[in-house]
Amino acid sequence: MNISHVEHIGVAVKSLADAIPFWQDKLGFPLYKTEEVAEQKVRVAFFKIGQTKIELLESTTPDGPIAKYIEKNGQGIQHVALAVTDLQGCLNELAEKGAALIDKAPRKGADGLDIAFVHPKSAGLLLELCEDPNK
Amino acid sequence: MNISHVEHIGVAVKSLADAIPFWQDKLGFPLYKTEEVAEQKVRVAFFKIGQTKIELLESTTPDGPIAKYIEKNGQGIQHVALAVTDLQGCLNELAEKGAALIDKAPRKGADGLDIAFVHPKSAGLLLELCEDPNK
Repeated sequence: MNISHVEHIGVAVKSLADAIPFWQDKLGFPLYKTEEVAEQKVRVAFFKIGQTKIELLESTTPDGPIAKYIEKNGQGIQHVALAVTDLQGCLNELAEKGAALIDKAPRKGADGLDIAFVHPKSAGLLLELCEDPNK
Repeated sequence: MNISHVEHIGVAVKSLADAIPFWQDKLGFPLYKTEEVAEQKVRVAFFKIGQTKIELLESTTPDGPIAKYIEKNGQGIQHVALAVTDLQGCLNELAEKGAALIDKAPRKGADGLDIAFVHPKSAGLLLELCEDPNK
């Protein structure tokens, strides 16, 4: 399995407008990108720190996964994503080794990446694997 | 403020013995290090992925911060740590900018680092800043 680095850290926030200034003004990072991912019912703002993006996630609807996460846990770190090559091969290998997968095949995520989630009951946290299809 | 990369991601687990095999056997990472940090009442196991360590944290006592975190939230990602140079300077700058700090001065953390925490009410998550005193 070829895992190179932590691609991003997903942080559930109530409001991007309230969350962005800490990263931008207090820590001094330029805003890398914002986008809406309709499938996941989120608006996203990214900051790049070395190899890793901080992905601030705001729900676009009260029934979205991020809204539900905040309702249960409050704001905070929701998932960690590792950059891999051959995502489908990684998923196959994990399934063979008995890991519980949320996604058995890649789907489209933010920032143009192919993504798949491993179940927290295997990883101990919500773990995403992602691959840049343009690399 | 000089912040270079995500130094580690702290993951609260009930048992290192139960959590290590996923990272070691299923994802295939070598165990980087284990240690006990008495001051924080934790045993720690590290895996290195690119620039970033995954820091699995097991409480050594029922009243430690990790035990309390798990009691409230279950297992999962407890904090994110950014690598900085001049940690005291960063803390001074954040305080001047009105950020809420848990630690106004560095203290000793795991893996030989000087560390300080920013309050979640400012960062939206439990954020650690850390500096390698040997660099």
